[in-house]
Amino acid sequence: MRMTTDFPPINAQRLWQRVETLSTFTLPDQPWTRRAFSDLFLRARAWLREEYLAAGLSPSLDAGGNLIGRRAGRLAQAAPIVTGSHCDTVVGGGRFDGIIGVLAGIEVAQTLQEQGIVLAHPLEVIDFLSEEPSDYGISCVGSRALAGLLDAGMLAARRADGETLAQGMARIGADPGALARPLRKPGGTAAFVELHIEQGPVLETRQVPIGVVTNIVGIRRTLITVTGQPDHAGTTPMDLRRDALVGAARVIEAAHARACALSGQPHYVVATVGRIAMTPNVPNAVPGSVELMLEVRSDSQTVLDTFAAAVLEAVAPGLAALRVSAAGEPVSQAAPTDCDPFVMDAIEAAASALAYPSLRLPSGAGHDGVYVSRTGPIGMIFVPCKGGRSHCPEEWLAPSQLLDGTRVLYQAILELDRRLTQR
Amino acid sequence: MRMTTDFPPINAQRLWQRVETLSTFTLPDQPWTRRAFSDLFLRARAWLREEYLAAGLSPSLDAGGNLIGRRAGRLAQAAPIVTGSHCDTVVGGGRFDGIIGVLAGIEVAQTLQEQGIVLAHPLEVIDFLSEEPSDYGISCVGSRALAGLLDAGMLAARRADGETLAQGMARIGADPGALARPLRKPGGTAAFVELHIEQGPVLETRQVPIGVVTNIVGIRRTLITVTGQPDHAGTTPMDLRRDALVGAARVIEAAHARACALSGQPHYVVATVGRIAMTPNVPNAVPGSVELMLEVRSDSQTVLDTFAAAVLEAVAPGLAALRVSAAGEPVSQAAPTDCDPFVMDAIEAAASALAYPSLRLPSGAGHDGVYVSRTGPIGMIFVPCKGGRSHCPEEWLAPSQLLDGTRVLYQAILELDRRLTQR
Repeated sequence: MRMTTDFPPINAQRLWQRVETLSTFTLPDQPWTRRAFSDLFLRARAWLREEYLAAGLSPSLDAGGNLIGRRAGRLAQAAPIVTGSHCDTVVGGGRFDGIIGVLAGIEVAQTLQEQGIVLAHPLEVIDFLSEEPSDYGISCVGSRALAGLLDAGMLAARRADGETLAQGMARIGADPGALARPLRKPGGTAAFVELHIEQGPVLETRQVPIGVVTNIVGIRRTLITVTGQPDHAGTTPMDLRRDALVGAARVIEAAHARACALSGQPHYVVATVGRIAMTPNVPNAVPGSVELMLEVRSDSQTVLDTFAAAVLEAVAPGLAALRVSAAGEPVSQAAPTDCDPFVMDAIEAAASALAYPSLRLPSGAGHDGVYVSRTGPIGMIFVPCKGGRSHCPEEWLAPSQLLDGTRVLYQAILELDRRLTQR
Repeated sequence: MRMTTDFPPINAQRLWQRVETLSTFTLPDQPWTRRAFSDLFLRARAWLREEYLAAGLSPSLDAGGNLIGRRAGRLAQAAPIVTGSHCDTVVGGGRFDGIIGVLAGIEVAQTLQEQGIVLAHPLEVIDFLSEEPSDYGISCVGSRALAGLLDAGMLAARRADGETLAQGMARIGADPGALARPLRKPGGTAAFVELHIEQGPVLETRQVPIGVVTNIVGIRRTLITVTGQPDHAGTTPMDLRRDALVGAARVIEAAHARACALSGQPHYVVATVGRIAMTPNVPNAVPGSVELMLEVRSDSQTVLDTFAAAVLEAVAPGLAALRVSAAGEPVSQAAPTDCDPFVMDAIEAAASALAYPSLRLPSGAGHDGVYVSRTGPIGMIFVPCKGGRSHCPEEWLAPSQLLDGTRVLYQAILELDRRLTQR
């Protein structure tokens, strides 16, 4: 069935205006920055609460610091259909990352209200607390809390000024003492669907307006320390030095080569050494030790489990020749999370009903869905962003692309409500 | 002529005690650190001034901030024979680097006084100001001033708190306004001889107690910037990224390989990437740009002139394949400085007279002699240090090795005084 182009009756201008307004809650000299737990973030949330009310959503803050807007459904006991995303940002990025998912959710709710449509299920729009890595070093704070996975160790993590995550959560109105148990049990979410920019170049390159996410890749971080010996850079002959940076260069090259070889064979695999720290790091000293943060992302648990060790094994002879050593220490891991076929099918059907071509693809970025999946079936809708750029000031999507995604979100929520009721 | 082992009558215990005392002027939690221009440095110099007096040396501070102790000679108009070194240190190193040259000079002067020996030439012991790279980014501050090479640009260099080098020099009692002309003209130094630890492993490995330095290598620093594109590390497929760190790894490997190939063929060549800085340097971003400080040291001007460009040419195809670029920007250069055969011969004769084996070798480290050479002939005496280690807390030489070097310094100064008088 081909719908007319004026259905769903999304108010594109209102939606874009909200994106413009929320994005201006930014550090003026470092756009677009709105860090979770900051005063700026709290001011943005005060504005967001008013928009919830304008869209007919009842606002509340849960114990995990998630700002929830709820619209009642016809079935009093039904678990809610949930949409949303997050309004915090990384430093210097995030003009659209996160916020379009929250604001598209508000627009869907307001359109339903204007159309006089009441779903069978309650509808919730959630602004999850601190999806991005917070200043306490923990990401997805709110969705972890939702699933009961924000443990005591995480709550005790401190940011630079000494404040713990628990103290920070209490400061913004959450209730960290209530997080020993999940805020929502399995089945507590009827379905979750999030609209997000792709943050990668695939949809733009393929000229497809709608992505149906198949899974959220697993992430494995390993801190690799290459140890040599710090010596005077002028007086230590080449054959007597133990240069840790030359060893590190071989690790970097090997990780890159391995990821290139594995990519698409058949799994999604990317590997990045994104952070480097060197001692002593002065021009006239042979590097004594180098720390490399190796991050591997894949939809294959086997790739995640074996990548770092395989890199270290590959470089071992070269490092031995340099008389330096390398060792890896696990830092963090998140398993790949599959999207639910039930939600994926509903999204695909919605796109199809609105005559949008769509493409199934994995998400290389982490999202709150990883944790929400503990409470119910999840799915995600991706829209293209310019040049695939994200987490940078240049991040951009066109108003028409946002409208495409919001229309599909609206239609997918109708589909989910209907299919869940018939199931 | 073989001398008896109790000549020269150096007081080994007094000498070592002074080394122990001066080295304890250190940051307590970061031994052995005594940065030029710090309060600690000024307290150490106040102590040093008292030791000058105890050794019969008249102390004065010149316009370049050099602390000079002078003993008169028989020839009123003669230029002085100069010895000495520096009492400032790098961060975390320098228990012996520098200070033994100053304290051996004091010991030589005190022994001459005790023996009732008056040289034909005046004898000066100089503690040169800030031989190590200062917090203003300039090394050899005092010896550059001596030679008239501390220019207005250097005097205007600022440290992190905004103080200029000129202000810092004025603060410690120097007269930066008087430095437009050399403090000493060519011929102003009859001869300069400095005792220093080798800071490398050659003498220890070859089991030779005395090194006669042939030249101080030239140093060329080039800042190489590798430019790629910062992207999301999870969502950017391997074949679409432009990873600056992978490009940088290839530069590091190529610089190492080239230095290994050129070393000893026939020149002294070492190359080091000792400092690295990366943007954005976070675990979940593809590195967008990397700065590498490439330092090359050699006694060959040709090697210095061509090294960085040859490395960039070697990696160009590999970087093009990664779609990253690299460019080098000159940062600093010092030409190789030859020691004077007249001074080298005197040192060799002194060692021989005291029955010490000696070895001619280049200095891979920079020294004040580079600048003092503008005022007269220079030479250096090296003594071994443990494991060749320097600029680190483990830096060590045995009291007997210090005594060896001080005896040779004493004898070399007598030789120079005699040979200069006869010339």
